[in-house]
Amino acid sequence: MGGDKAMDETKRNHYSGRFAYHGLDRVLHEKARLGIMTSLMTHADGLLFNDLKELCSLTDGNLSRHLQTLAEASLVEIWKSSSAGRSQTLCRLTETGCQRFASYVTALERVVRDAAAAEKGWDAEDGSMPSGWVAT
Amino acid sequence: MGGDKAMDETKRNHYSGRFAYHGLDRVLHEKARLGIMTSLMTHADGLLFNDLKELCSLTDGNLSRHLQTLAEASLVEIWKSSSAGRSQTLCRLTETGCQRFASYVTALERVVRDAAAAEKGWDAEDGSMPSGWVAT
Repeated sequence: MGGDKAMDETKRNHYSGRFAYHGLDRVLHEKARLGIMTSLMTHADGLLFNDLKELCSLTDGNLSRHLQTLAEASLVEIWKSSSAGRSQTLCRLTETGCQRFASYVTALERVVRDAAAAEKGWDAEDGSMPSGWVAT
Repeated sequence: MGGDKAMDETKRNHYSGRFAYHGLDRVLHEKARLGIMTSLMTHADGLLFNDLKELCSLTDGNLSRHLQTLAEASLVEIWKSSSAGRSQTLCRLTETGCQRFASYVTALERVVRDAAAAEKGWDAEDGSMPSGWVAT
């Protein structure tokens, strides 16, 4: 009965790459960076380093590292100020960052739609394997 | 003008961790594994290795590596068959895999909702910085 589990050639070609999700930008598809980007998207005039750290529950080191990755990709810009006798760091989305994030979210929406459609079809009761298959 | 960019203490505490997205399971929040999981969710009775490879546009090596990660986390199960004179590998979601994936998708939906709400408020025209801030 093993053979009938394979897709036929036409179906396989038709669906080739259907779940490759190329739109899931590697720079953005990272938990911490996703939090940073959404925080900054929600605060159009920027966020101070310490506020951003708090919103994303990140350590100083982690936030710095991820901000650097995002800045190198021109998705965020980092500003310094030493007014009022102390140094402050402000982070803001760039126009590119806003556009790239919007495209990423469109890809994410597709995953959510695919998953929601699949959940309806997934029948956990149909759990028995035909004979000839051995668990590894 | 730098000072007015900081959140006040009450607001900061209130929103602490708001964008931490703890529900974004690290095993699942990876582009290739997300494709594998959605493919398997869409095919409740399992997929042969070669079909899964095609759907996700992955190489043999990459698919093997990611399947191993998912199997170690008990999210997928791997079956072997040597019927019809050749060896075949079938991959299926486990019940745990289905549940964990559903939770992950709920977290993903929240990101999408946050991002959609933020996009409406993001005004790219408000791009000038008050004096005293220096780009890095």
